Amino acid sequence: MTREPPFTELMQGLPDTTPFVGPEALERRNGVKIHLRLGANESRFGISPAAYRALEEVIGHVPDYGDPENHELREELALRHGARSDNIVVASGIDDLLGLAARVFVADGAPTVTSRGTYPTSNYHVVGYGGRLHEVPYAGDAVDLNALAEAARRHSARLVYLANPDNPAGTFHGREDVQRLVDSLPDGCVVLLDEAYSDFAPSDDLLPVDVEDWRVLRMRTFSKAHGFAGLRIGYAIVHEAIATAFGKVRHHFGVNRCAQTAALASLRDPGFAAGVARAVEAGRAEYERLAGELGLRALPSSTNFVAVDVGSATTVRRLLDTLLTRGVFVRSGTQPPLDRCIRITVGTPPERSEFAAALRDVLPDVLGS
Amino acid sequence: MTREPPFTELMQGLPDTTPFVGPEALERRNGVKIHLRLGANESRFGISPAAYRALEEVIGHVPDYGDPENHELREELALRHGARSDNIVVASGIDDLLGLAARVFVADGAPTVTSRGTYPTSNYHVVGYGGRLHEVPYAGDAVDLNALAEAARRHSARLVYLANPDNPAGTFHGREDVQRLVDSLPDGCVVLLDEAYSDFAPSDDLLPVDVEDWRVLRMRTFSKAHGFAGLRIGYAIVHEAIATAFGKVRHHFGVNRCAQTAALASLRDPGFAAGVARAVEAGRAEYERLAGELGLRALPSSTNFVAVDVGSATTVRRLLDTLLTRGVFVRSGTQPPLDRCIRITVGTPPERSEFAAALRDVLPDVLGS
Repeated sequence: MTREPPFTELMQGLPDTTPFVGPEALERRNGVKIHLRLGANESRFGISPAAYRALEEVIGHVPDYGDPENHELREELALRHGARSDNIVVASGIDDLLGLAARVFVADGAPTVTSRGTYPTSNYHVVGYGGRLHEVPYAGDAVDLNALAEAARRHSARLVYLANPDNPAGTFHGREDVQRLVDSLPDGCVVLLDEAYSDFAPSDDLLPVDVEDWRVLRMRTFSKAHGFAGLRIGYAIVHEAIATAFGKVRHHFGVNRCAQTAALASLRDPGFAAGVARAVEAGRAEYERLAGELGLRALPSSTNFVAVDVGSATTVRRLLDTLLTRGVFVRSGTQPPLDRCIRITVGTPPERSEFAAALRDVLPDVLGS
Repeated sequence: MTREPPFTELMQGLPDTTPFVGPEALERRNGVKIHLRLGANESRFGISPAAYRALEEVIGHVPDYGDPENHELREELALRHGARSDNIVVASGIDDLLGLAARVFVADGAPTVTSRGTYPTSNYHVVGYGGRLHEVPYAGDAVDLNALAEAARRHSARLVYLANPDNPAGTFHGREDVQRLVDSLPDGCVVLLDEAYSDFAPSDDLLPVDVEDWRVLRMRTFSKAHGFAGLRIGYAIVHEAIATAFGKVRHHFGVNRCAQTAALASLRDPGFAAGVARAVEAGRAEYERLAGELGLRALPSSTNFVAVDVGSATTVRRLLDTLLTRGVFVRSGTQPPLDRCIRITVGTPPERSEFAAALRDVLPDVLGS
């Protein structure tokens, strides 16, 4: 036999990198136990009691496949978004949906435009499917909408990725700015509008849903305010033609029954997610005060995390490593300008106190070294 | 804007079909409630009590992402298969793994060989990724290994799909026959060995694991004997180079925490799956007797279902429709020669009695009409 398995040429050229190293892997590599898990923007505020009861009940039914059409959940989501269920695609998280979008739009090598240093999983899929990636820098600490539009026109892009609110910055663009971006795209270009953090943004300033406009693919998740990161479920709100296209390639049985059941129960308990959003808002304010007290600046955040400027990527690296030795897991931006910021998930009040104590304790040494 | 979203050419040409219509969709379309769910080869024998306890515990932790490396589970699986964890890829079911295989091996249009009428999801992915499909007929009611090998050589195939035991036939090829197939493939060709039903096959006649041979990609699932179809988890045992390739494109956070936890607990309770396999064996024998009593022939099965020859595809269609009006869900083969068979999942003893009663009741009319 030949020496190597017969991979496609694209596969042979792909880098052996992954978007994120998980906290469990950090524990194994560093031999420490993480007791403060504030690095992955998971919800620290639990799940809806109704969802909990639904999960207790559904574990008696895990031998059965879930509904591949996600029918009931799509009906419920359609109702909430003023759309039809034919506009809703449920998948195992936004990451899954980003993969579908890359696959149906740019797998033939088409150009994609994104912001350098934003959430990396869209890039992972674009590159993994063979799309061509063009990155533009942030403007200050926010995504540069003008630069995205300009690059989309220059490269005749077929896809533009926009996380709004942004991760890892936390910054947010209002509806008028986003609509202006959409309207300034070249003909035949769509926007992947990743709204993973929209539950924490000003709801009246989100771009309104318009499923007749196929240029905007909106992606939402149950991983944040609803607290289901570990269950893997998210959805897209899209023009029917795009939902049909996703349906031609998606994993029909890819969403597990626990996630389907819990998402439906949590949606029907809307007070829960709203309460989490309020608790997160209080926590952000507390992180901002902490940063100020320590002579640091917190970036404005419309998410469940706060990016805090500690001055340089070197300091960030030292700080993250030091915190990790104490069992505190936070992350940072990975590219300029956000690589000078640590990114702290909003924890519960006790977690915030514990984090504040740890930061106060290690910061002088880290800054002084 | 242009009239249509800017899909790739491949996408535009894909058919709008799905591998399977789920029982929930059948209920909605036909306005009946299914009370006997014997069509999707789900386990009717529950889950391990240890897995149940693990699930009760893990639902308190669903706000946290699962370990993207599936570390603990891979270690456990490696131990059981005499492999290293670098040879194990965990994914959200075999369907997910079939997609990864199509993607890394044939997405550039490479030829794939399979059996006409076998489990369709491999074809779904091969076509969806742009591979070229060549089908060979069954030999009698079993996959024709010689025809697969011959077609692989004739088409210079890069991928051959083999479900062993086969679905929907239930028939099985022993280790020597499978090894002969592997050895007769053209240079630079791999076999996707889909062993979804291997828990019910003669364990001493399965092809031994040899992770040094990259020509064989083995795929296993927790959906059958372990009872986790609704949780979505399966794994591949492959050469390390193939595991690395899958790692470049897989959804790193795609496996949910409930599935990870339950799979580990069930693996550590090996008596459970073995007990299910014994219960299934008894159920198969009962279905064979039922078929004989009704003047029908049951195909030999090494799975958790039995295909019963009812004479013609027309009779199959009539029988399935009639059973469905009574709330009984079974499926059938979709292509000759298996389209003359209904495929009945092995149920519990009460489910088997109920199914037998329903079949005895409707069969005379269906055969006579």
